[in-house]
Amino acid sequence: MKQISAAILKSVIQPRPQESHKGTFGRVLVVAGSATYGGAGIMSASAALLTGAGLTTLASDPVNRTALHSQHPEIMFIDWHDDSLLRTTLVTSDVVVIGPGLGVDDFAWQLLQRVLPQLSEQQVVIIDGSALTLLAEHHEIPDTKAQMILTPHQEEWHRLSQLAIPSQSITANQQVLQKWPAKTILVLKQHRTEIYQQTDVYQNTTGVAAMATGGMGDTLTGIIAGMIAQFKKPLPATLAAVYLHSLAGQELARQQYLVLPSQLIAMLPHLMWQYQDRSN
Amino acid sequence: MKQISAAILKSVIQPRPQESHKGTFGRVLVVAGSATYGGAGIMSASAALLTGAGLTTLASDPVNRTALHSQHPEIMFIDWHDDSLLRTTLVTSDVVVIGPGLGVDDFAWQLLQRVLPQLSEQQVVIIDGSALTLLAEHHEIPDTKAQMILTPHQEEWHRLSQLAIPSQSITANQQVLQKWPAKTILVLKQHRTEIYQQTDVYQNTTGVAAMATGGMGDTLTGIIAGMIAQFKKPLPATLAAVYLHSLAGQELARQQYLVLPSQLIAMLPHLMWQYQDRSN
Amino acid sequence: MKQISAAILKSVIQPRPQESHKGTFGRVLVVAGSATYGGAGIMSASAALLTGAGLTTLASDPVNRTALHSQHPEIMFIDWHDDSLLRTTLVTSDVVVIGPGLGVDDFAWQLLQRVLPQLSEQQVVIIDGSALTLLAEHHEIPDTKAQMILTPHQEEWHRLSQLAIPSQSITANQQVLQKWPAKTILVLKQHRTEIYQQTDVYQNTTGVAAMATGGMGDTLTGIIAGMIAQFKKPLPATLAAVYLHSLAGQELARQQYLVLPSQLIAMLPHLMWQYQDRSN
Amino acid sequence: MKQISAAILKSVIQPRPQESHKGTFGRVLVVAGSATYGGAGIMSASAALLTGAGLTTLASDPVNRTALHSQHPEIMFIDWHDDSLLRTTLVTSDVVVIGPGLGVDDFAWQLLQRVLPQLSEQQVVIIDGSALTLLAEHHEIPDTKAQMILTPHQEEWHRLSQLAIPSQSITANQQVLQKWPAKTILVLKQHRTEIYQQTDVYQNTTGVAAMATGGMGDTLTGIIAGMIAQFKKPLPATLAAVYLHSLAGQELARQQYLVLPSQLIAMLPHLMWQYQDRSN
Repeated sequence: MKQISAAILKSVIQPRPQESHKGTFGRVLVVAGSATYGGAGIMSASAALLTGAGLTTLASDPVNRTALHSQHPEIMFIDWHDDSLLRTTLVTSDVVVIGPGLGVDDFAWQLLQRVLPQLSEQQVVIIDGSALTLLAEHHEIPDTKAQMILTPHQEEWHRLSQLAIPSQSITANQQVLQKWPAKTILVLKQHRTEIYQQTDVYQNTTGVAAMATGGMGDTLTGIIAGMIAQFKKPLPATLAAVYLHSLAGQELARQQYLVLPSQLIAMLPHLMWQYQDRSN
Repeated sequence: MKQISAAILKSVIQPRPQESHKGTFGRVLVVAGSATYGGAGIMSASAALLTGAGLTTLASDPVNRTALHSQHPEIMFIDWHDDSLLRTTLVTSDVVVIGPGLGVDDFAWQLLQRVLPQLSEQQVVIIDGSALTLLAEHHEIPDTKAQMILTPHQEEWHRLSQLAIPSQSITANQQVLQKWPAKTILVLKQHRTEIYQQTDVYQNTTGVAAMATGGMGDTLTGIIAGMIAQFKKPLPATLAAVYLHSLAGQELARQQYLVLPSQLIAMLPHLMWQYQDRSN
Repeated sequence: MKQISAAILKSVIQPRPQESHKGTFGRVLVVAGSATYGGAGIMSASAALLTGAGLTTLASDPVNRTALHSQHPEIMFIDWHDDSLLRTTLVTSDVVVIGPGLGVDDFAWQLLQRVLPQLSEQQVVIIDGSALTLLAEHHEIPDTKAQMILTPHQEEWHRLSQLAIPSQSITANQQVLQKWPAKTILVLKQHRTEIYQQTDVYQNTTGVAAMATGGMGDTLTGIIAGMIAQFKKPLPATLAAVYLHSLAGQELARQQYLVLPSQLIAMLPHLMWQYQDRSN
Repeated sequence: MKQISAAILKSVIQPRPQESHKGTFGRVLVVAGSATYGGAGIMSASAALLTGAGLTTLASDPVNRTALHSQHPEIMFIDWHDDSLLRTTLVTSDVVVIGPGLGVDDFAWQLLQRVLPQLSEQQVVIIDGSALTLLAEHHEIPDTKAQMILTPHQEEWHRLSQLAIPSQSITANQQVLQKWPAKTILVLKQHRTEIYQQTDVYQNTTGVAAMATGGMGDTLTGIIAGMIAQFKKPLPATLAAVYLHSLAGQELARQQYLVLPSQLIAMLPHLMWQYQDRSN
């Protein structure tokens, strides 16, 4: 098991090419946020935006449009009942997040089944929260060509892997992951988050208890999406995202008893500037 | 009568355990905010969030959803007409706030009657504002198994206790409180707020007139809820909440003629960090 | 003509009494903001809140509720079509603002006719913007017992007084004002705003062109309301409000080419602290 | 080809005349923002406001009203389906922006056809985004008397000019522009944005890749509008707007890996103060 350190940020966060435009930095689509859990979608999409994705879109229940635009007019909004618009946006996205605050009702399940099969091999999909619960309930490995990144916390992984929390050893987790397509990445969230891909296992070394509040997981999905949208290679980008997320929380916790996702998200542009590769 | 001092913060606000997750820090449900007084619910839930509750939900009139999520996407939102969702959330909450901006119409009374009997002995319920007025009107001590915390200002206590303000002596207040279940805590809000439980009486020693503005009481309910959600023991947690609330106002009043609840709420994470137990 | 100076702030802004509560600092009701000009109501009510009114309510078109609460949950909201709730709130208000962004359609005129006659001698009403235009169109001096404060800019005063701008001399303005009830205050907004009451005339000495932007007048109405709610005496409170408004703009303009009402409003609590009476 | 430098700011941004009012600084109407791309309209109108336009109005899909007013109550809002109100506002505007996030459906095309012919020779219209795509689709040079400013990025200019990106040489661009009315200004957005009018060509010298994110173009339209509203002469005002936009981004990028339009907009009042003409 390898430890992730600040070196991953320097290796992943490259200076932006001068000759570039918003398309250069990728398109992220976040499918998330029911009427009750609308904030989850907002936090995930906001995190993708503030990590530097070129274009970010939130597909969500229409009750969430105004709260999104009140905070970030930069993010586009799709009513997730609009099949045709959703399909068009899916096809042109580089990275798709599905799951935060999705809920587990019939509509959510249908949406998941509609989104995943439409994705291509060139795309990456981050599956989180309710979407993982739905997959566990239906005992399904999703039918998708996109590279999958799973981001369960330990209880969600329990449901998906059938491994009770005490049984979630590295070996056991690796065995379960073998049933999934080869490139699938597992981000197993916990005090020291572990990241798995095939035989590789990484462990995060940052993170503080001040971050233990609702919405932190949703935020992480957006940071992963934003990182991959810009820097492409999914494994290092995911490792960098996990590290950056915890680092931001840790910085804030130096003077706060608790840390909110919104505060952490606001820190990202400065933190990425601070930790980027400066060798050139 | 004991004076509350900054020592209560140090004694209550313990360093967070490293091995923890959002569930460790408790679940708060705020049932508050009609169409007219929607801000009351938002301020109460925001205060619980910024005090560090692990998961915070606001059950309110649906017109209040977007304003909540525009400020704090971290807070979940329930339409309070949705009986089934409200019931599920009630059952899994550690602390329930009911009353801020609830209004005193028939619906409010029915909601109060629906919520209180569903609570168990393991739960704490903070009853505030309109909910106290409703109880006074119906001459009822609520039918609930949860430990109650009442947070009237002097006029609301007049209605509830039948004690006119000049008659609200410590002894008289204690006598009225004896009719309530033994563990009930009374937070009697005034220039120097008094806190009662059985034979114990405490008096706050902080607070400034700059804080005398609408919404300060709603904010206090959320801080109490957030404190109990994390630190469990209701009496010390309530004392700490009352002190922290006034301390935050006092800090802001060092350079402001008046202090807004929203400003006070924003200060909480830093102030808790500053006043936490540092002995370990 | 007397010049207003910073001395007016020191004389009006007294330290808050320790034994006080939100009621001590007065109730303001702002009736303002159609669907198109909703921001005007929000800015007026926000200014009253940040000036320190104990309780502030906005009665407006319901489309404006969420934008208000997204910024200031401290302010209560009434749908201005709700006659009964509006009436109850009117009766208990110390100061009423009517006019900012009201529009000039039939509904606006009816609302104005409904509000003004309901007010009592103990109340103050600030009549602004569209409300002044409506009065001019109907050639009416309002039927109200409340003390009136009129806040026209020069073109609105033209419509109301029939005095073309070049004819708006001190003497001519005083003559027109004599037709109004004796205690009526005229705040004639211009580069150096003039304030009239009976034979008294005051001129503001602060203010900068950086403040010439939509919403500044709406903001002034809220500051006047907040000042009177707290400090009662309408004439000195109005003078202090006019001075404070310009002073805040001037402070911001030291480092900004232009100044927004929202920025000015945010400065008020600190500025009032700085300029309050410190003699005790 | 002339290089634009900071000198353009000093030459355009003149100290505001003391004897002035909001009308002095011009009226901007932004027609922009469908239900999906509502943020584009908000960013464009916000930029006009923060650049110092005296009065700014957004005509947009009604779903965007609340998000606008949650951020900037200073901006007026028109439902763009309200023909009569739109017409009245068009006539009294000094500068009109049309296009950001307009979409390309039938309604958008009809709106464009309704707006452009109503404008007079005294007005300036900035045509951006979807509006340019619609004109390209319909192979039309718009029927309008207003001075036009076109703000395509290179792909939009490809559609409009039939010049593929590698063929967009200065000479080729000038030739295409000759088919447009003589005073038309072309702002061709790219790494080093070029500005054309008749035989004049200017090139921007600032701008950083940190600005390559959705909404930056919408923001530029608002800055151009705000500049022309205040300083009138369209060509220098446009040059100053392009320079100011990039300068703001560059300043932020000194400590941020990426820059959001909202952050850039917030900097404008201070930056304009810093770079204004101080010779008097």
